Amino acid sequence: MPFIDISTIQAIEPVPGCRMRTPYGENLMLSYLEMDEGAVVPLHDHPHEQGGILLKGQVELTIGDETRICEAGSLFIIPPNTPHKAVAVNGPAVVLDVFSPVREDYAELFNKYIPQV
Amino acid sequence: MPFIDISTIQAIEPVPGCRMRTPYGENLMLSYLEMDEGAVVPLHDHPHEQGGILLKGQVELTIGDETRICEAGSLFIIPPNTPHKAVAVNGPAVVLDVFSPVREDYAELFNKYIPQV
Repeated sequence: MPFIDISTIQAIEPVPGCRMRTPYGENLMLSYLEMDEGAVVPLHDHPHEQGGILLKGQVELTIGDETRICEAGSLFIIPPNTPHKAVAVNGPAVVLDVFSPVREDYAELFNKYIPQV
Repeated sequence: MPFIDISTIQAIEPVPGCRMRTPYGENLMLSYLEMDEGAVVPLHDHPHEQGGILLKGQVELTIGDETRICEAGSLFIIPPNTPHKAVAVNGPAVVLDVFSPVREDYAELFNKYIPQV
């Protein structure tokens, strides 16, 4: 899917108040994440490297031992196996995450909604 | 660099009117690309997969045989070795690209400006 119309992709809700759409290719997975105000992605880690940008709103982002309030335009790269957490503060937020390699767990969920051609 | 302040990163200008900042990790490279109106990234291809999002403005994006005008919020994934081209139309534009694996050519340029610790 070179050109992606994100509105046509079914969202999954991995945690309450977080809706995630995860188109992916061979080496990378995009994750368009909408967070309601106060929504929390709890502290977790995974072997996949994760980069991203805050598109809208404010997110209190913890990466390893550091916590910062990120604004729209903030970029980050979370090394593999590094604990991280996100909380949408002062309103809703939208984040574009990128995983490499592709997250197999989300890819499996994604395929429940998108028929294979 | 988990939290990235893009303003502190030296830009490179791979083609006229295009300024690119490329922080990277192990598996992925972010490329924050500012394009002046009319700036052109000529048709090219590479073995790295490339995903991204248009952050501001409008870009006429060609991927393979298809050309579309993309607006802010448009997402795309360009498969490895697929010819692509971008033109900023109707004003300046900003794109966040993501490469996986890391582009060695840009990483080398990046390291010219950022002292190794």
